[in-house]
Formats: sequence, C-alpha cells, structure tokens
Amino acid sequence: MPDTNVRPDSMQRITTPALAAAFIEEQIKELRAQIGSDQVLLALSGGVDSSVVAALLIRAVGKQLTCVHVNHGLMRKGESEQVIDVFRNQLGANLIYVDASDRFLDKLAGVSDPETKRKIIGKEFIDVFAEEAEKLEGVRFLGQGTIYPDILESKDGVKAHHNVGGMPEKFDFELVEPVKLLFKDEVRVVGRALGLPDSMVDRQPFPGPGLGVRCLGAITRDRLAALREADAIVREEIGKAVADGTEAPVWQYFAVVPDMRATGVENGKRRFDWPVILRAVNTVDAMTATVPELGWDLLKRITDRILAEVPGVCRVLYDLSPKPIGTIEFE
Amino acid sequence: MPDTNVRPDSMQRITTPALAAAFIEEQIKELRAQIGSDQVLLALSGGVDSSVVAALLIRAVGKQLTCVHVNHGLMRKGESEQVIDVFRNQLGANLIYVDASDRFLDKLAGVSDPETKRKIIGKEFIDVFAEEAEKLEGVRFLGQGTIYPDILESKDGVKAHHNVGGMPEKFDFELVEPVKLLFKDEVRVVGRALGLPDSMVDRQPFPGPGLGVRCLGAITRDRLAALREADAIVREEIGKAVADGTEAPVWQYFAVVPDMRATGVENGKRRFDWPVILRAVNTVDAMTATVPELGWDLLKRITDRILAEVPGVCRVLYDLSPKPIGTIEFE
Repeated sequence: MPDTNVRPDSMQRITTPALAAAFIEEQIKELRAQIGSDQVLLALSGGVDSSVVAALLIRAVGKQLTCVHVNHGLMRKGESEQVIDVFRNQLGANLIYVDASDRFLDKLAGVSDPETKRKIIGKEFIDVFAEEAEKLEGVRFLGQGTIYPDILESKDGVKAHHNVGGMPEKFDFELVEPVKLLFKDEVRVVGRALGLPDSMVDRQPFPGPGLGVRCLGAITRDRLAALREADAIVREEIGKAVADGTEAPVWQYFAVVPDMRATGVENGKRRFDWPVILRAVNTVDAMTATVPELGWDLLKRITDRILAEVPGVCRVLYDLSPKPIGTIEFE
Repeated sequence: MPDTNVRPDSMQRITTPALAAAFIEEQIKELRAQIGSDQVLLALSGGVDSSVVAALLIRAVGKQLTCVHVNHGLMRKGESEQVIDVFRNQLGANLIYVDASDRFLDKLAGVSDPETKRKIIGKEFIDVFAEEAEKLEGVRFLGQGTIYPDILESKDGVKAHHNVGGMPEKFDFELVEPVKLLFKDEVRVVGRALGLPDSMVDRQPFPGPGLGVRCLGAITRDRLAALREADAIVREEIGKAVADGTEAPVWQYFAVVPDMRATGVENGKRRFDWPVILRAVNTVDAMTATVPELGWDLLKRITDRILAEVPGVCRVLYDLSPKPIGTIEFE
C-alpha cells in the first residue's frame, strides 16, 4: 500500500484554474467516499489553508460540516467578520462563531514572556475548540488544513504537522486532510477556483497567536486596539501601493507595538505614548529576509495616518533589520 | 546705566574670523578688568558654550581659571577624553577631571521615570561640582556659558538662564559670562578663532542628562554601553556621508536604546536582545522637525555595522516621526 503522505512524482503542479477544477472534482469524490453520511468538524481560523479545506468540504458534504471559528481577540481588523461573511453568508456553511476574546485576554493579562504567551494562547485555543466539539453529537471526522510542507517538515522533525494539534484523546477523530499533498501556491490556486475572495486567498502569513505576538510583552486591551488599527493602516497603504504599481510586491508587512512609551508633543502638551514599528520583509523561504526600500512618500503617508488616526501612538519606526539577525516576527 | 543683558543694536553679527578676533581681544581686556588677580571656576561639559568660555578665560587669566569636568557616565563615546586632551594637554588649563560614573549610575539604578531621572542627574551634578568647589580656596568668580537665547528665553519665562544653576547659596560666586550677548552661530565662529577643534565647535545639541535620556527607562550599564557604541557608529557614518556630499547636511542624529527586547536569530540560535532606534531630524528652531530621507545604502550600512559590532543588539529601527507629534528626544 503506498504511503498516502508522499506526493507521487506523477502529480502535476496545480497552476491553472483548469488544473484546480480537476483537483476539486477529484477531491469532492474522495471526500464523499471517505466521509459518507458522517459529521465533520473543522477549526476555521481564516487562514488560507483551513479556508480552502472548509470550502472543499462544503462542496463535498455541505451541512455535514460544522466550522468553528474561535475569535481569540488577537485577530486582525475585520478578519473574524470576513470569516463569518464568506462562510456563513456566502457559502452557507454551518458556522459556530465563538467570541472568546475576554477569556484569552484575561488569561494573558500581565504575562510578558513570549513563550508563555504562546503556550497560553495555544492551550486556550484547544480548550475552547474542544468545548465546542463536546457540544456536538456524532462527529467522526476532523478536517485539517495540513499542507505538504507541513508533512515534509514533520518528517525532518522540525515541527508537528497537524495544525490544530493536541486535541484531547477522548475525541479520537479521524483526520480529513484534502490539501495535504499541495504546496502553498497550489492551495491558493485551488482557493481562487473555489470562489474564495482574493483577500483571503492571498492573505499574508499570520502566526497562530495572531496579534498576540505583535503586541509585545504583557498584552493590554488598549495597546492591542492601537496595534489593530495601525496594522490595518499599514496593510491598506502598502497593499494599495503594490496594487497600483508604485511599489514592487512585498512578501509580508505588518505593525508591531512594543511595551514602551516615548515622549511626544501635541498642541503644546506633552504626551507619553507608544511607538508603532512598521515591519516589512521580502523572502523566498522565510529563513532569510531582506527589508524593502519602500518609497519615502509611502513611509510618510503611513506615518502621518498612524499618528493622526491611532489613539495612544506618538511615533512610527521602520524596522531596518534583515534576517538574520532580526527575525521576521518580534517575539 | 544700560542693561548689560541687552544686546546693543550697534553690535555687529560675528560672522568672520576677523570679527571673532576683535571680539576675543575686547573680551580678554574686559575679563582681566573684571577678574583682576582672583580665581575663576568653570563647569566644563564639553559643549560648545562652556568650551568657548573656557578657552576665552584661559587666554585672559590662564591658571587663575580652574575647569571642572564631571563625567557623569552618560557622555558620548570619546567625549570626556577629548575635553581632557584639548583643555589640559593642548591649552594647558587647570582641569579637574571627576569620574563620577559609578556615583551617577548607582543613583539611577532602577529609576525608570524620565523626570525623576533628569532630577537625579541634575541634583547629582550640582552636588559633585559643589564638592569640588569646596576643595578650592579663594574662588570669587563662576564662569558660565550663558548665551543670548538663554537670556531671551529667561525673559520670556521659558527657562532659567544660567547653565549650571542651583549652586548652594554659601558659595556666593560672581558670574562671568563673556558670551552672554552672542547667538549660537557667533559662539561657533569665536570657538573656531580660539583654535577649538571642529568636532567640539560643531558639536550637535546634546541634552544635559546626556545618554541618560537616550537609554530609555531604567538605565543599566550594559545597555548604556550598547547605546554608546551604536551612537558612535550612527554619528560616524552620517557624519562621513554628509562630509563627502552623498547626504545633505542633517541637523541632528543619534541613537536611542529602549528598555525592551525582541527576538533575533544568529547561527541558528535564538537571541532576545535590544533594538537600536536611529533618530535623525532637520529643524530650524527645534519647535518643529522633519525626518531626512536618508539614502538606503547609508541606512543599511549603519544597520549592518550596528548588528555586527554592538553586543546585545539584534535590530535597528529608523524613527519616521516628525515633530509634532514625536519630539526630537525620546524622554
């Protein structure tokens, strides 16, 4: 019996809508054969991989799929709203939306160590998801957005290849992983063919702990709110500049708000507020990264908008650090 | 009797070496008449104003002047060494050098509030200087680097016009302020005519608390050392680029090291180190300031050098904030 976790040499790279359509037809057949009349559960983060798996499962088994979207309070601006709009309103999915913001932020209060923050967010996520799973009856399958690099890295021992991971043993779900032999670019082509919006399919890499690792140190609600607004401005302005061709494509760009304050002045009054750090990088493999030479007009427009629109911020800093030595994320 | 704190309308702006030489000759006569055979004391910070007053007094009364240079541990790289070299070795002044670094840094340990830091540094400076003054006998005069803008601002009630300020009353010194009717640019012309080195005469504005307000939050010796090295690299590289004409002149530029850490990676190992913030501004009156559009080659060269040469630093950030809302300094 062949190892189903090895991509066959004969498998053609999915680069066109036609190839994507063929892949989708084949997967729908296989998913129906695997799942039959049983129930499937899926943690839908809003990321490309889980979104494509959700869209495939909706095509294949419709209401037998239940999506759970956990808003951990660390989503980017408009992200949970988009998940609800696309999957519940447009695709008609069974979608359970759990606003667990307070629960996460309460647990994170006063925690400044990055690793501890990550652990709390990861554990809490499993707990919330498991609680929702327990409320459902007769679920046999768990859908997962595993992609081929996850499997390759898992074989190398770099990281565990399942995305959700650590589900309590009592559930004993069988996994459904329809894109596990695809590379990221293929997942995007398939997502587009499934009718997912560009903003979801082309979504920049976003870490599981979300804005939690970009609101540096101990997260507070006010600083997190400032980060979310600043990040939306950074993404909007660089996105527009790339779209209209005034900037070359940039691989990833986002805002970071450190746990520090610096002086500012407004209408003659002293302020003591946060800086926003603007991080933008180009990379091929995320192992090394360079800093794009963004236009000064763009940098100044972003700066002016953040200083004018985001409460509690009095400075904007552009990160000049290549990787190595600076990593792409800050914690 | 005319107000000696008002610049006469007839007084010509000192813009040439010849005008400076005439001013110097006149001041030497006046200083000798005022001081006679008495002793003069001067706090010599290494700044333009006190350096020019010291050089004038050396010409006028030679060894009747005693300069006290207090190294508060917050000087920039090489600064105290230059004061000693120029005044003791080249100009043959009576110079008392007090290395009070430990005393200042011990008092500042754990103090993170900017205003408290400033007060501690200011009070400690007076205390150290007063202790040195007490050891001397027969001092009647106190030299001061008051300049005309100090007097104008003092009249406006903006700030007290004496530089040292707050000397204990028991001393009852008479003030000697030979450059009190000069504007800053005139002080520089006079300094050059007195043979002071360009690096001293053209010194960028540097706050009294020195690197203490650029090592943000609670100062530690290791972070202060990193700041001093990074600041030297920033000043060297931008200075060179301006000198060789690849950059237009920049009014002020320096490094800041905040009290925070971010991840980095080196040879596959995780680091958790400080960022260096690069601050550069152009301004006419320091009330508003713009950020120069430095060349990417220069920004990247500074970044690479700081990351390679300064222990404990894994990132470099360029401050994009105009004033307002960002101030020139960070605390």
